[in-house]
Amino acid sequence: MIQVAVFGYGTVGSGVVQVIDDNNDLIAKRVGERLNVKYILDLRDFPGDKNQEKVVHDVNIILDDPEVEIICETMGGVKPAYQYTKSALEKGKSVCTSNKELVANHGPELIKIAEANKCNYMFEASVGGGIPIIRAMNTSLAAENIVKIIGILNGTTNYMLTKMAGEGTSYDEVLKKAQDLGYAERNPEADVEGYDACRKIAILASLMTGHYVKYEDVYTEGITAITPMDFEYAKKLGKSIKLLAIADDRDGKLTVMVAPFMIGANHQLNGVNDVFNAVYVTGNMLDDAMFYGRGAGKLPTASAVVADVIECARNIGRTLPCLWDEEVVRLADYKEVKRRFFVRVSREQRGAVLNQVGPIKEVAVCDEEFAFITPVMTEKAFDDKIKNLKGVLSVIRVEE
Amino acid sequence: MIQVAVFGYGTVGSGVVQVIDDNNDLIAKRVGERLNVKYILDLRDFPGDKNQEKVVHDVNIILDDPEVEIICETMGGVKPAYQYTKSALEKGKSVCTSNKELVANHGPELIKIAEANKCNYMFEASVGGGIPIIRAMNTSLAAENIVKIIGILNGTTNYMLTKMAGEGTSYDEVLKKAQDLGYAERNPEADVEGYDACRKIAILASLMTGHYVKYEDVYTEGITAITPMDFEYAKKLGKSIKLLAIADDRDGKLTVMVAPFMIGANHQLNGVNDVFNAVYVTGNMLDDAMFYGRGAGKLPTASAVVADVIECARNIGRTLPCLWDEEVVRLADYKEVKRRFFVRVSREQRGAVLNQVGPIKEVAVCDEEFAFITPVMTEKAFDDKIKNLKGVLSVIRVEE
Repeated sequence: MIQVAVFGYGTVGSGVVQVIDDNNDLIAKRVGERLNVKYILDLRDFPGDKNQEKVVHDVNIILDDPEVEIICETMGGVKPAYQYTKSALEKGKSVCTSNKELVANHGPELIKIAEANKCNYMFEASVGGGIPIIRAMNTSLAAENIVKIIGILNGTTNYMLTKMAGEGTSYDEVLKKAQDLGYAERNPEADVEGYDACRKIAILASLMTGHYVKYEDVYTEGITAITPMDFEYAKKLGKSIKLLAIADDRDGKLTVMVAPFMIGANHQLNGVNDVFNAVYVTGNMLDDAMFYGRGAGKLPTASAVVADVIECARNIGRTLPCLWDEEVVRLADYKEVKRRFFVRVSREQRGAVLNQVGPIKEVAVCDEEFAFITPVMTEKAFDDKIKNLKGVLSVIRVEE
Repeated sequence: MIQVAVFGYGTVGSGVVQVIDDNNDLIAKRVGERLNVKYILDLRDFPGDKNQEKVVHDVNIILDDPEVEIICETMGGVKPAYQYTKSALEKGKSVCTSNKELVANHGPELIKIAEANKCNYMFEASVGGGIPIIRAMNTSLAAENIVKIIGILNGTTNYMLTKMAGEGTSYDEVLKKAQDLGYAERNPEADVEGYDACRKIAILASLMTGHYVKYEDVYTEGITAITPMDFEYAKKLGKSIKLLAIADDRDGKLTVMVAPFMIGANHQLNGVNDVFNAVYVTGNMLDDAMFYGRGAGKLPTASAVVADVIECARNIGRTLPCLWDEEVVRLADYKEVKRRFFVRVSREQRGAVLNQVGPIKEVAVCDEEFAFITPVMTEKAFDDKIKNLKGVLSVIRVEE
């Protein structure tokens, strides 16, 4: 019997307990031993909950119990999760987390502590919910030099953009709907401003390099400026608009960014809709691959946490390889990346556009304005070209 | 330094040597030791090849060399690969293979031998080429009760069906084109009759159950009967036609089959085109996930073999869990599965159709015939309904 504790009995934490419970026989077969949730750490009590007897309020009861070998940290946030995780690892207890905030802030340090204490710090559920991308990067793609990752990493914004595309609703309306459905928080900033996706791509970019990509260094733009009119053009152009998180290694220069992009109909990411997430990976041998699934939600995320628990249970006393050291990666300037840009501009600016940008193919959905897609150029060159252009209504980067 | 040998210097084998060569530094970092290809086993010589000195013709040179710890079996076929693999495993050498034929025929036995000799028999590359589905099933999805797998597992037929859909070409024309491009063999039977996909889904279904699904028990139908007219209807219905390999566990009754299916526009598998493959997995906690990538090809397949080599190198003297025992799974009758059916029938049969099947919604692309999609029913019930119907031009199952 392997004793497990769960830190935080919220959505994901209660999901973890449910997965371990419902799939217990099957997990026992796969581990070779049965898993048992011995404690649940939470500030609250849960009278009437079938696990109420397992709830404790003092973390030290768990940290001091030598029977507990694996901890699921599903509290979220940096404090006090960081201190709890560190203490657990220092005592040789493996920690499996869904906490992207903590992983993005302290990942390499915690991995190092785990290694020093012959246990594991695992974080499959921190990126892409149920999508098994972290373990794939550590194992299945270990023979690859990964040159590019494009992710749709935030379910809330992907739901919102899908609705805006399908129903022509405004940003504000669709945000309200997402909040009513519980997909978006009352304070939706972390999702809609791209902060959530930013932390996730920083984690993936770190694993891609083996070093530390700090999320603070990642250029991040949200979806708040996208309008129904942008979607009308996108439809006309056979494209969709997605919030993409991109880590792109061009000749050893790594750029990492989060922003809305237009993406072509034939790209696999085009069809990733609603709350689904996907990670599109390009390796130097593998070429393109994609991992698709539920990027959030109680049970899919919990399933990823428990998959980590199973790995830890199969490897008691042994640290699994996870190459992510504390050396900070200096990111290249994303303005040096070459791409196309979608531009909407008021009709009066036609002459100025031809003058600044050169011959373009116009697309219009109404009389007052038109749009065009630029040739391939660096973002710096693009900025130079349009800086004197008045009446620019919208600019969206194009991913091909 | 970890010494590796490659059995078979064909497409995948030479790819393996190239991946180990080109990504050697990166792999060394990930393994903790450098990999070196010490021998290449092949009947042929390769004068002028930069690895010609490594080529040997006698397998015993490799089997008797205690330095060799890992073997890449990229020969294909059951004989002599089976004997070579067995001998290698019995000497404690791990074997990583791309040989689906051998895995489908002798997987559980070879896994058992590996376990008894504290080494590994790994076969990521045997299903889905570069798509990391095998390791996902053994690790990332270990907390899941997988209830359904739908795969597009054969690149050749997927290329052919994509071309037929896009260009309206006939089966014979598109087969010729695929042969000219090297996507299809001169004798295309293994691909177009579904035998290749059958072996692959038997492997995935085995891992799904932990027991042995024999490929001989899998109902298999190829794509040879699909016509351009079927695609005209598919287009009109907003569907596509794909060769699907399905393992479906309904209330503990497992059915496994390979056949062409019509699939809706919103299904993720609908957009899997050309030589790409994908595996769509449904788990009881995870819900739906999809793994997409190049299902064949020299370097993607070789990358998967080398990912296995890396896992073996990280686990010398230790067998990684792979639950697949020799107990043969009794498959349920696929005729008991409920689904819809697409039926094309000559116009004169309208009265008989209404009589046999009941009210239907007709779709027509020409005057001589029409098509309809049945309500949901078992295949047995469907067979009963149409057995007396004359003038049936085509029947294709529908996956929703």
